[in-house]
Amino acid sequence: MSQVRVHNFTVSLDGFSAGEGQSLESPFGHAQGRLMEWFMGTRTFRAMHGENDGSNGVDEAFAGRWGPGIGAEIMGRNKFGPQRGPWENEDWKGWWGDDPVFHTPVFVLTHHPRPSIEMKGGTTFHFIDADPAQALARAKEAAGGLDVRIGGGPATVRQFLAADLIDHLHVVLVPIILGRGERLWEGLESLEERFSVESVSSPSGVTHLTFTRRRG
Amino acid sequence: MSQVRVHNFTVSLDGFSAGEGQSLESPFGHAQGRLMEWFMGTRTFRAMHGENDGSNGVDEAFAGRWGPGIGAEIMGRNKFGPQRGPWENEDWKGWWGDDPVFHTPVFVLTHHPRPSIEMKGGTTFHFIDADPAQALARAKEAAGGLDVRIGGGPATVRQFLAADLIDHLHVVLVPIILGRGERLWEGLESLEERFSVESVSSPSGVTHLTFTRRRG
Repeated sequence: MSQVRVHNFTVSLDGFSAGEGQSLESPFGHAQGRLMEWFMGTRTFRAMHGENDGSNGVDEAFAGRWGPGIGAEIMGRNKFGPQRGPWENEDWKGWWGDDPVFHTPVFVLTHHPRPSIEMKGGTTFHFIDADPAQALARAKEAAGGLDVRIGGGPATVRQFLAADLIDHLHVVLVPIILGRGERLWEGLESLEERFSVESVSSPSGVTHLTFTRRRG
Repeated sequence: MSQVRVHNFTVSLDGFSAGEGQSLESPFGHAQGRLMEWFMGTRTFRAMHGENDGSNGVDEAFAGRWGPGIGAEIMGRNKFGPQRGPWENEDWKGWWGDDPVFHTPVFVLTHHPRPSIEMKGGTTFHFIDADPAQALARAKEAAGGLDVRIGGGPATVRQFLAADLIDHLHVVLVPIILGRGERLWEGLESLEERFSVESVSSPSGVTHLTFTRRRG
């Protein structure tokens, strides 16, 4: 049976997964790149940018699980781009360039559907107005038996967790105090009771936590 | 030069260091013992209860640093007991029994000073109405050249961190989502910039983080 997975999802010590003030120029708001520094040195990240180097340690062991076995992604609209409300500019095709890293169908959750966009390299963005269960049904159909990745942002991950639709959650705890932004854990009291949780710290300073859903 | 230290201070994944609904019967509120489970198996905790057993691994390595070299503690009133406002019952001598674990002078921060209480085993509770710097001056004087421990709760640790009076902060991250209670990190944006931070996960499931204040 296919799984629903979240990978490489960073959170600050005070529980924020995104900073304040997201814009076209600042996709992470005031958090800037601080939540993603651990990732930028990994072989997986470097390969996304056409380089064949990068670290091969514990950070890479987790980072590299992002792609294999995934047949579709679901993301919130804010991960596609900073526009809010009705689409004013349909020419701009998101933050991900001409050849996005996904290489699968990607379902973008929005209250303002628009025509799908087929990009280079196998990525097609579909814009759907759907609740988590409906979106997952669509993504599973498109995934052809492979797993579905919930790509974020925080509100999207939180909604899928609240609906108990996540099988595997990989969270990367970054030891910084962000102070403001978007909280990951809001409304998820006692979430851990539904999961087996493991933690391992990396020499880079972050701690990887895995939540594996209990069966039965 | 003596240091100001915080030890064994637990925080949930969503940033809470105490639950909601603290009372005489429930010192930790709805968090109950969940934040302290990692500690209860350690040799240090067992020794506090007259037992000579307990774990000797990474949790104990951190837990055991709580006592040695400490000459005084500062604690918030809520760590002494659940009473709020003017003291209605001065006969009750706090949550810590006849022979408290501290064995040093303990300065209890309160807007309602009352006479000091000398307990068995070297612990004396002093009740003072003071800001962090004033309280620390009193405690340092009483500590006779040894270090001062800031014992909590969350509001007290937060105030001393905000005033930049902490040299060493040991935080234990417990992978649970508490959902409500008292936040540790509120108002401390970018705190990490003043410290060197290390993280290490324990087989018990918690992650120990140490914040060591940068000099100069």
